[in-house]
Amino acid sequence: MSLYDHHVFVCHNVRPEGAPRPSCTADGKSEVFTQLQQATKAAGLTNVRINKSLCLDQCEHGPTIVVYPEAVWYGFVKPEDAAEIVEEHLVNGRPVERLRIADSCINSKACPHRG
Amino acid sequence: MSLYDHHVFVCHNVRPEGAPRPSCTADGKSEVFTQLQQATKAAGLTNVRINKSLCLDQCEHGPTIVVYPEAVWYGFVKPEDAAEIVEEHLVNGRPVERLRIADSCINSKACPHRG
Repeated sequence: MSLYDHHVFVCHNVRPEGAPRPSCTADGKSEVFTQLQQATKAAGLTNVRINKSLCLDQCEHGPTIVVYPEAVWYGFVKPEDAAEIVEEHLVNGRPVERLRIADSCINSKACPHRG
Repeated sequence: MSLYDHHVFVCHNVRPEGAPRPSCTADGKSEVFTQLQQATKAAGLTNVRINKSLCLDQCEHGPTIVVYPEAVWYGFVKPEDAAEIVEEHLVNGRPVERLRIADSCINSKACPHRG
């Protein structure tokens, strides 16, 4: 083992009720995270880490994920998307286009997902 | 703004007392994180994110940090190292060699820092 082939950060942020921006998880627990971990293990990927992170600051696209070193961002990820992310992206090296956050949305106040 | 020029993950993990591996923070708070945020802001870097993460799994080198997309790992980081990381690495693009975790230590059970 060495540097991770893929290091996947899954946002676990919880904001207080009534906060102006949304939360990626309701209670700091993420079924997306659990499913990604299980699918990664099932695929036999030993040099990939599925990592909990706190706020990734793309809150309007939550639940959000970023995969490094390739800097691929995913948004509105559901637990049932985990298998496809692992198989297509982490195993086959093909990011799942339908789940990507557009580069033009990342860190952009002009992003249409922001109110 | 767009994709981050640098996305810096700072481990905030806390293990229970007596756990076999060490913790990166004693109480989930990180002065390294705070100093990195302040130095980044002072340097005028608007396209860098200093991010809280949970366990980065390089626990014997804690407090640990990883900077993406370049996958540079730092270990045994002290709050007073933050200014140098920001100025040298994030501004000038030169990783701080004295703080790097050796690639041969990353994810390696042969790492001499592991008991």
